[in-house]
Amino acid sequence: MQLGMVGLGRMGGNIVRRLMRDGHECVVYDVSADAVAGLVAEGAVGAGSLGELVSQLDAPRAIWLMIPAGLTGRVVDEVAALLEPGDTIIDGGNSNYRDDVRRAAALKDSGIHYVDVGTSGGVFGLERGYCLMVGGPDEAFQRIEPILQTIAPGSGEAGRTPGRTGDFAPEELGYLHCGPSGAGHFVKMVHNGIEYGVMAALAEGLNILEHADAGIQQAEHSAEVAPLEEPEFYQFTIDTPKVAELWRRGSVISSWLLDLTAAALQGNPTLEGLAGRVSDSGEGRWTVKAAVDTGVPVPVLAASLFERFASRDEDRFANQVLSAMRLQFGGHQELPAGDVLEAGGRKSESSSGGSGSVDGAS
Amino acid sequence: MQLGMVGLGRMGGNIVRRLMRDGHECVVYDVSADAVAGLVAEGAVGAGSLGELVSQLDAPRAIWLMIPAGLTGRVVDEVAALLEPGDTIIDGGNSNYRDDVRRAAALKDSGIHYVDVGTSGGVFGLERGYCLMVGGPDEAFQRIEPILQTIAPGSGEAGRTPGRTGDFAPEELGYLHCGPSGAGHFVKMVHNGIEYGVMAALAEGLNILEHADAGIQQAEHSAEVAPLEEPEFYQFTIDTPKVAELWRRGSVISSWLLDLTAAALQGNPTLEGLAGRVSDSGEGRWTVKAAVDTGVPVPVLAASLFERFASRDEDRFANQVLSAMRLQFGGHQELPAGDVLEAGGRKSESSSGGSGSVDGAS
Amino acid sequence: MQLGMVGLGRMGGNIVRRLMRDGHECVVYDVSADAVAGLVAEGAVGAGSLGELVSQLDAPRAIWLMIPAGLTGRVVDEVAALLEPGDTIIDGGNSNYRDDVRRAAALKDSGIHYVDVGTSGGVFGLERGYCLMVGGPDEAFQRIEPILQTIAPGSGEAGRTPGRTGDFAPEELGYLHCGPSGAGHFVKMVHNGIEYGVMAALAEGLNILEHADAGIQQAEHSAEVAPLEEPEFYQFTIDTPKVAELWRRGSVISSWLLDLTAAALQGNPTLEGLAGRVSDSGEGRWTVKAAVDTGVPVPVLAASLFERFASRDEDRFANQVLSAMRLQFGGHQELPAGDVLEAGGRKSESSSGGSGSVDGAS
Amino acid sequence: MQLGMVGLGRMGGNIVRRLMRDGHECVVYDVSADAVAGLVAEGAVGAGSLGELVSQLDAPRAIWLMIPAGLTGRVVDEVAALLEPGDTIIDGGNSNYRDDVRRAAALKDSGIHYVDVGTSGGVFGLERGYCLMVGGPDEAFQRIEPILQTIAPGSGEAGRTPGRTGDFAPEELGYLHCGPSGAGHFVKMVHNGIEYGVMAALAEGLNILEHADAGIQQAEHSAEVAPLEEPEFYQFTIDTPKVAELWRRGSVISSWLLDLTAAALQGNPTLEGLAGRVSDSGEGRWTVKAAVDTGVPVPVLAASLFERFASRDEDRFANQVLSAMRLQFGGHQELPAGDVLEAGGRKSESSSGGSGSVDGAS
Repeated sequence: MQLGMVGLGRMGGNIVRRLMRDGHECVVYDVSADAVAGLVAEGAVGAGSLGELVSQLDAPRAIWLMIPAGLTGRVVDEVAALLEPGDTIIDGGNSNYRDDVRRAAALKDSGIHYVDVGTSGGVFGLERGYCLMVGGPDEAFQRIEPILQTIAPGSGEAGRTPGRTGDFAPEELGYLHCGPSGAGHFVKMVHNGIEYGVMAALAEGLNILEHADAGIQQAEHSAEVAPLEEPEFYQFTIDTPKVAELWRRGSVISSWLLDLTAAALQGNPTLEGLAGRVSDSGEGRWTVKAAVDTGVPVPVLAASLFERFASRDEDRFANQVLSAMRLQFGGHQELPAGDVLEAGGRKSESSSGGSGSVDGAS
Repeated sequence: MQLGMVGLGRMGGNIVRRLMRDGHECVVYDVSADAVAGLVAEGAVGAGSLGELVSQLDAPRAIWLMIPAGLTGRVVDEVAALLEPGDTIIDGGNSNYRDDVRRAAALKDSGIHYVDVGTSGGVFGLERGYCLMVGGPDEAFQRIEPILQTIAPGSGEAGRTPGRTGDFAPEELGYLHCGPSGAGHFVKMVHNGIEYGVMAALAEGLNILEHADAGIQQAEHSAEVAPLEEPEFYQFTIDTPKVAELWRRGSVISSWLLDLTAAALQGNPTLEGLAGRVSDSGEGRWTVKAAVDTGVPVPVLAASLFERFASRDEDRFANQVLSAMRLQFGGHQELPAGDVLEAGGRKSESSSGGSGSVDGAS
Repeated sequence: MQLGMVGLGRMGGNIVRRLMRDGHECVVYDVSADAVAGLVAEGAVGAGSLGELVSQLDAPRAIWLMIPAGLTGRVVDEVAALLEPGDTIIDGGNSNYRDDVRRAAALKDSGIHYVDVGTSGGVFGLERGYCLMVGGPDEAFQRIEPILQTIAPGSGEAGRTPGRTGDFAPEELGYLHCGPSGAGHFVKMVHNGIEYGVMAALAEGLNILEHADAGIQQAEHSAEVAPLEEPEFYQFTIDTPKVAELWRRGSVISSWLLDLTAAALQGNPTLEGLAGRVSDSGEGRWTVKAAVDTGVPVPVLAASLFERFASRDEDRFANQVLSAMRLQFGGHQELPAGDVLEAGGRKSESSSGGSGSVDGAS
Repeated sequence: MQLGMVGLGRMGGNIVRRLMRDGHECVVYDVSADAVAGLVAEGAVGAGSLGELVSQLDAPRAIWLMIPAGLTGRVVDEVAALLEPGDTIIDGGNSNYRDDVRRAAALKDSGIHYVDVGTSGGVFGLERGYCLMVGGPDEAFQRIEPILQTIAPGSGEAGRTPGRTGDFAPEELGYLHCGPSGAGHFVKMVHNGIEYGVMAALAEGLNILEHADAGIQQAEHSAEVAPLEEPEFYQFTIDTPKVAELWRRGSVISSWLLDLTAAALQGNPTLEGLAGRVSDSGEGRWTVKAAVDTGVPVPVLAASLFERFASRDEDRFANQVLSAMRLQFGGHQELPAGDVLEAGGRKSESSSGGSGSVDGAS
């Protein structure tokens, strides 16, 4: 079928490529004329404006927006103003599902359908296909189902779940009508919330492996805290990149995120050049807030979000308060970052007192 | 090559089957004569005692123990007493790596090698192969490598990591010599710690999906707490089993644990009959303690462990203390489990005061 | 000065009593005529309606609302309709600070002042005074300052902070103008968020003390999980009520919440009759959401909130999912709640396999 | 009565001063001769060696060790070698309770009593008295009770708990015999674990207050993440030092740690000069490990410990792994620390793609 695509970045462009490969006709627009030209060279019909895009599509039209969430509201309004009853706007970006609920309600009287599609797959989607979580009215979903089938991965990648028989259900082909407007991005939001948690579990575990040599390191360099109590049990120098590769085969935690981790560590075993300042893009926050709203305990998902905040030093004032309290009640001075622990000994944290004294007992 | 197997439960039995399929010779023993007889019928050589097992193996012998961690110490001692210098004992169970460190040290003077193998794969290992994390001396590792190659999954299951070329490395075949004695179970311990975290991330996320109808439910039945503030955003009735199936294809969180989750929900969509009292088998605890010892922050892994404790009501006294405090400072009575919230209203938590009063402000 | 009070529950009534003791004149209203009559008997002027309340106050009026947050919006509107420019509405309840921001904006053109007051003190406020966190325009704050001074505890209770000299600042008297409209309830919200965390820290710690006899208990009754590894270190039968009392004196964690905990345990040492289903009243949720919005990591505050959710079994589906996964990958059956662990042994979690087998290795 | 004190640091010295004020006789020793001389000048009997200390005490002797935990084992051995049956060694330092269990067992046959005393009070103990948590045999406890009574705060500081009548119980005077050897330090350990949690709750809450101006700040400077969604609700510039002072009076969270926080912020409102690298001294770790051993969920206490680890960048490798994964699946580049967000816009995280594109959707 025919689709208009607005936004030709990595994801929008690759979705267009997947659609054209499968025989769909794509009319494309981006604020970057180069991006449009690139896809025209691959067979798409180009448009120099939203109006031109709309005019080149046959009613009832379907227009997919693949643009930053911050721009979606404005572009939906602009596109809607150009459309007719029966046309469909699809938001495939990372919108907050609450905006979908509001936008669908706002468009209701116009007769324009609004479909929200949570799209997962990252930079690998061209090849793997995209997992599609769809919200909106039945009628609109059914009309765009042919393009969803093409964009989705299909059944091939994963084995069939025991107990499933007969024709493949949509969810077995990689797309699902999750419910009314907003349901698609709601499910995508939770997907990303889970992603944060899984990523953190892997990262924390690998960090333990990196510290498995604490009993060897201790004698050599700095510490500013409780000494390692049983150094004989932390004498391992683990090759973390090899372990990540190993776990990909046969282990309970084999997963695509582990595949990516192994690839990252293969290319850069010490992760040199990465500062470890981890961004977050909104969905993790929305997930925690949805859980709080509905009274669902999510200690793991929340912890994974807060680790990202802390990685960007947003915990700084809190930590200063802790140091200030310790200074107050125990006279504890902060140790400088590079201070050295004498082998086997407990580094005294205080600056005064007899040398045999317990200082700072609280 | 030839291997003696002690312990013919699901995992020990399947490892023997995998080995025999690939032409290895297995001498097997279990306290259950039926278990021995079953594998003899499949081609193994049976033994009626540990002594008989040892006597049927050619030196230098290799004996794999696949028995509960609580019994391993005793059986290692019994087997060691029957062996000669140059023989190898392999602990493939879920031992604490600290016990490996101790056992290897204790056996050192005897000339008997001790190899610890963390084995992942669960009930699917016969078919998928087992991911093997190995600790011990180089010489012993090399001698048993042929059987490790057979037990491991091989390269087939996962695509090759970009940047890897040439012959497959052991970790690409599903087994790895991680370091000296204990290193195998250390890596397996962390693997299981990660597993707890990944499982919890999935479970928490699915629980949010289950509560996505909070805005619909609210009008109907009970609540004892802060009312849902924006019910219009929680109007989704998500088909959780279908979503789990969907995410298996193309999504960032596709993983074997998700495959299993989809299978579980396919067979039992409401998880009826499960009480949600979640056991833990030790590795999660050891992981958190190792992280604490080495000063590694693991909020996600620890939270996932504590969720299991709480699922078994180990948080009961703490929660009673909280209720007792609230009663003290605010006169708050606990609401009974089934109490009903009037639609749209905030259920007063206190038993006294004027009907228009704020009680319990703290 | 003169104050109108709407809402004569425990807190509203006691605030009126504190004000009358100090010579202020109070006109009071509640939907309960009995509540009004009770305070009239103590010296207040009663009103049978909001209109009657307003008509008995001299302009510029000050009316304090001490009513459930769910009703505040409606009552603010009703009262505002009866007032004149220059009058002041004070919301002393547990409103979300966002509602204050909205209400103050809505009232701006009317010339009616709106002041939000976060009020802490619980059932002890009559005697101890109430800690008052105030938001709103300077002019309105200054006009009601005399009643704030009376309601607040004054300086007496706590020693003077080193470095403070001269006249007592308002914060040393127990009230503070925190900023524009909403700032009072914002600070109160964070106060309650902290309260959740402090309560949880105490409750978790006391729960460890309750389990310090795990090494004694183990031989006697049930367990369904990893056996206690070093029972010799968990042989303590701690008298938790006495410890709570002890910590009140000289310890670093002495606090009012600990005083209350000691009182609760003194009266009910085993906390019998409490189910441990812990309510939450909104502020903890708002605190976590505010932290998420502003990118502040709050793992402790969030964990304390989630513990409350879990205490009410909101973790049920998540835990069922975990059990379902374990059943899938390891064939692990859930153990019934009352199952018995043989002394010293590890309870097998699986129902099948040879008796010497490792089942459920993952 | 008579007491020997070994270790004259801040705490040991002040305990001696408290004892002498109350008429007890103290013989003192420290590796620092100056520390000994200082207390001799205040009335103590000095000793130049452990032997001299012992010889100046009348049997049955009581010797209090107030030395770093790392040295206690050696000094206990040295002192024990000099003592007679019926003498008592008191460890008042921050020992791991497991060491007490071991030391008491080792000394049992010698007839020398061993008493462990968890001592809380920090630098304020001279004036406030010390909260004493005592473990050991009844007989030894009773013999040293007179000195415990002097060192403890007595009843004065805290009001009497409702329901308590008659003579003050020991716990109302600030000391308690908690159980057999190790029980004192076990209770002290949990006390410190709680302390970590309470400190973290306060620090996190104050950090939210510090970020309450996020809606003002946003327009001005950097961000690298999800933009603030409702800046109109984060327009508060909170005076955190004043709020800390305010909460000391009448609020539910009034506590000694809050008193100290207010003092710290009064002296240094911006906490300038503190790096926020927070040490931990062992008890927090032991608390979490004890909870893990006994299956007690302690998400709050554990989170507070992990925040300290992370404050010292022990989360670095984990965060690098997260950044590496994001780079893999979404092509997300880490934003530099000082990068600038354009007002109102969402900072694109990716380096490529059309300007209107969604990149990095996962």
